[in-house]
Amino acid sequence: MTDDVTPTDAETACFEAGIKFGSLYHQFAGTPISPASAGSLARAIEDSIENQPHCTAVTVDVREEELEEALAEASAEYTELTGRFLEVEIVVDYEGCEVVTRMEMEDGYPLMRLESVGGRE
Amino acid sequence: MTDDVTPTDAETACFEAGIKFGSLYHQFAGTPISPASAGSLARAIEDSIENQPHCTAVTVDVREEELEEALAEASAEYTELTGRFLEVEIVVDYEGCEVVTRMEMEDGYPLMRLESVGGRE
Amino acid sequence: MTDDVTPTDAETACFEAGIKFGSLYHQFAGTPISPASAGSLARAIEDSIENQPHCTAVTVDVREEELEEALAEASAEYTELTGRFLEVEIVVDYEGCEVVTRMEMEDGYPLMRLESVGGRE
Amino acid sequence: MTDDVTPTDAETACFEAGIKFGSLYHQFAGTPISPASAGSLARAIEDSIENQPHCTAVTVDVREEELEEALAEASAEYTELTGRFLEVEIVVDYEGCEVVTRMEMEDGYPLMRLESVGGRE
Repeated sequence: MTDDVTPTDAETACFEAGIKFGSLYHQFAGTPISPASAGSLARAIEDSIENQPHCTAVTVDVREEELEEALAEASAEYTELTGRFLEVEIVVDYEGCEVVTRMEMEDGYPLMRLESVGGRE
Repeated sequence: MTDDVTPTDAETACFEAGIKFGSLYHQFAGTPISPASAGSLARAIEDSIENQPHCTAVTVDVREEELEEALAEASAEYTELTGRFLEVEIVVDYEGCEVVTRMEMEDGYPLMRLESVGGRE
Repeated sequence: MTDDVTPTDAETACFEAGIKFGSLYHQFAGTPISPASAGSLARAIEDSIENQPHCTAVTVDVREEELEEALAEASAEYTELTGRFLEVEIVVDYEGCEVVTRMEMEDGYPLMRLESVGGRE
Repeated sequence: MTDDVTPTDAETACFEAGIKFGSLYHQFAGTPISPASAGSLARAIEDSIENQPHCTAVTVDVREEELEEALAEASAEYTELTGRFLEVEIVVDYEGCEVVTRMEMEDGYPLMRLESVGGRE
């Protein structure tokens, strides 16, 4: 156990990666989505979040099978974007520390997690 | 003055048009935006809002000059989407009543207004 | 059928009411919610949307039983706000036309509708 | 430099803290706000974000002077919530690692930063 509470570069990189994930999810959750509009929404999410500082790459895949099942079940033509329709990878680089993060469904809950933290001193 | 408070089809068309405008604005306001990402965001806004019931057409133009001025002023590479960067037209058709609505800046405030209500009985 | 496409005050009142509903839904959908936090969220939704022009009253009820069932089913302590947890009434007054609107679940879908349009000339 | 890319508990705590900050900002940015509604919105933000996993405490202060200045300048009665009106502190505890984070204005930009990372092994 250490007394030093100053954040390391790797910790800051992880903090930055978390900001991107929270931003992505809460900016776009609730957006009306259909199979026809899923592609342009995925591109817009990628492009907009990549604007944020230290964000190297954002990859958004819409789980189209899941989306079509949900629409068939509800006899609807569109629904609201939520985590069950998304797979996301975000890569952040802060001062040479590269952090790879991912959101995937786990037990019916969209789990955001750190995959790897590279470049620590 | 009439005692009948039952909504007409034209009034319902106007209500539906308002829903689309409020949805569009409050879903996407705050999205990180730069000149490079403005195009894909505009397309995604159009495609997603067009999913909503009775919505015939959504046209979103990003006011790029205004966006570039705001970025130059702040020495920033991106900013948050807000009404001053948008011009939007939404057309709704409900039971043969076509409503055209528009959002434009007026005195520094993004004003949403009804342009025309057609097809009244 | 008339050729005049100028909006009436009642139509504008309906448009304004729609804006409030779309705003309310897409601003707050996705917010983390639990039985303990439902009350403060409902108050904040009411107070913030009442700021909008011509908005006389907003009443938000969280359907607590529905919320608790959803949490029990998912073995979760919180979930995301969506239409199934809300009952909303919004009253708008524009130039003496009073419009009452409501959102309730109907066949598993949060339906926004005009209840009454009063004060027409 | 190490080859091990497995996240530490402290790094995960920082990632979790970032998620809360991004969530808070992008869920609530754009909400209509006035001096009269600022208090209930601040409480709702605190209560809703505290629902998220590992989140110990959220403190939201609305910068009321800044808000009143912005309204006076625009001759408006309300505006949209954005970073310049907020001061936020979020505390996260993950496996005994306590992370304190803060958002404050710096050079006209709402900067989110790690204050301290405690409990590292």
